[in-house]
Amino acid sequence: MTAPRPTPGAVPHEPLAAEVRARFLGHLGATIWLTGLPASGKTTIALALERALLSQGRPAFVLDGDTLRHGLSAGLSFDAAGRAEAVRRAGEAALLLAQSGAVAIASLVSPYRADRDAVRARHAQSRLPFLEAFVDVELAVAAARDPKGHYKKALAGEMPGFTGVSDPYEAPTSPELRLATATMSVDECVQTALVGLSRCAGSGSF
Amino acid sequence: MTAPRPTPGAVPHEPLAAEVRARFLGHLGATIWLTGLPASGKTTIALALERALLSQGRPAFVLDGDTLRHGLSAGLSFDAAGRAEAVRRAGEAALLLAQSGAVAIASLVSPYRADRDAVRARHAQSRLPFLEAFVDVELAVAAARDPKGHYKKALAGEMPGFTGVSDPYEAPTSPELRLATATMSVDECVQTALVGLSRCAGSGSF
Repeated sequence: MTAPRPTPGAVPHEPLAAEVRARFLGHLGATIWLTGLPASGKTTIALALERALLSQGRPAFVLDGDTLRHGLSAGLSFDAAGRAEAVRRAGEAALLLAQSGAVAIASLVSPYRADRDAVRARHAQSRLPFLEAFVDVELAVAAARDPKGHYKKALAGEMPGFTGVSDPYEAPTSPELRLATATMSVDECVQTALVGLSRCAGSGSF
Repeated sequence: MTAPRPTPGAVPHEPLAAEVRARFLGHLGATIWLTGLPASGKTTIALALERALLSQGRPAFVLDGDTLRHGLSAGLSFDAAGRAEAVRRAGEAALLLAQSGAVAIASLVSPYRADRDAVRARHAQSRLPFLEAFVDVELAVAAARDPKGHYKKALAGEMPGFTGVSDPYEAPTSPELRLATATMSVDECVQTALVGLSRCAGSGSF
C-alpha cells in the first residue's frame, strides 16, 4: 500500500527546534519498536521497560497494537492493507511522542518489513532514534504459550489471517536489538533495551 | 460520521495506572484544544504556550492541524467526513500524549461541535482534563489578517470548503476558555491558558 499523500493546501507549522526542547527537558525522545509473533512477549517487555524508564524519571509510553485498535486504528482490518495503515498510524503516534521528548515503546506484531521500514524512514526524516527490537521466539514456543487461545484456533484452520500460521511474518533482517524471550528473562530483555537506548545517547540524540 | 468501531479480536492491554505514572513523573497530562477560524491565532498561541510550559520544565507538545495532514492525517479530505476523521485522529494523538504525562496543545480549526465533543468524551473516559479554548475573533478580523491569502480566494469564490466563508464554523457553546485575539495579546492568551490548566491541578488531575 502506498502511504497517503499530504493534503493539498495544508502548510505545516514551524515546530519548536528539537535542541530548544532538549535544553528545557534535559533529553530528547526516541522510539523503540518491538516486533514479533503473537505471544512472543512484546507487551510484557514493553510494560517492564516503560516502568524501568519511568523509575529513572524518564517519560515513556507504551503503544500497544491491540489497544490502538480501540482508538487511533479502530475499524481497520487485519489484511495487508489494514495492517499497513495500523502500523503507519502507530508509527506516526510514536513519532509524535518521541518528538515530545518521551520514549515511545511500540508493541505491534507489524509483520511486514516494508511497513516497519516506512516508520524507520519517518523517524530518520525527523532525526529521531528508531530502534527495531526483534522479539524472537520459535513459532512452536509462541504457540505453546497461546494466552488467548488464538494459535489453537488458527492451527485448527478456524482463524484466517493469523500471523505465523495463516498469514506471513517477515522477520527483521538487521534489527538494532534481538530479544530472545525463550532464553532471556524479562529483566534481561529490559536491560538489553536500556543499553540500546543509552547507545543512542552517545550520538547526542537521546 | 460514526466513529470507527474497535477491531474484533483486539484485546487492549492493561496500561500502567495513571497514579503510578504521576508518582514517577510528578504530574499527569492534559489536553488543551484550540479551536477557531483560520487565521484566528491558534498556532501562534499554541507555540507560545508550549514554550511557556517547557520553560517550567513541563512536557508539552503542539499538535497542529496542518502539520498532522502531512503525517497522521495525510490524504484526508476537507469535507465534513474528512474533517471529522482528522479531528478524531488528532484527538486520539492528544489523548496518547496526555496519557504519557504531557500537555497536548491541539491547534485545529475543528469547525464541527460534534467532532470536538467526541474528543472531549474520549478524554472523559480516560479521566484526563480536556480544556476547549475558543480562539474567538470576528470573521472580518481574521479575513483582514489572511496570512496565507486563503480568505481573499474564498471571498472571491475561488476556494470552496473554506471554513467561515464557504464552509460552516460552529462556535463552542461553553468552552472552558475564551481567547479573544483581537483584544488580548499573545502573552495574555498564554497566561489565561496557564491559569485554566492550573485550575485542573486543583482537582488533582494535572
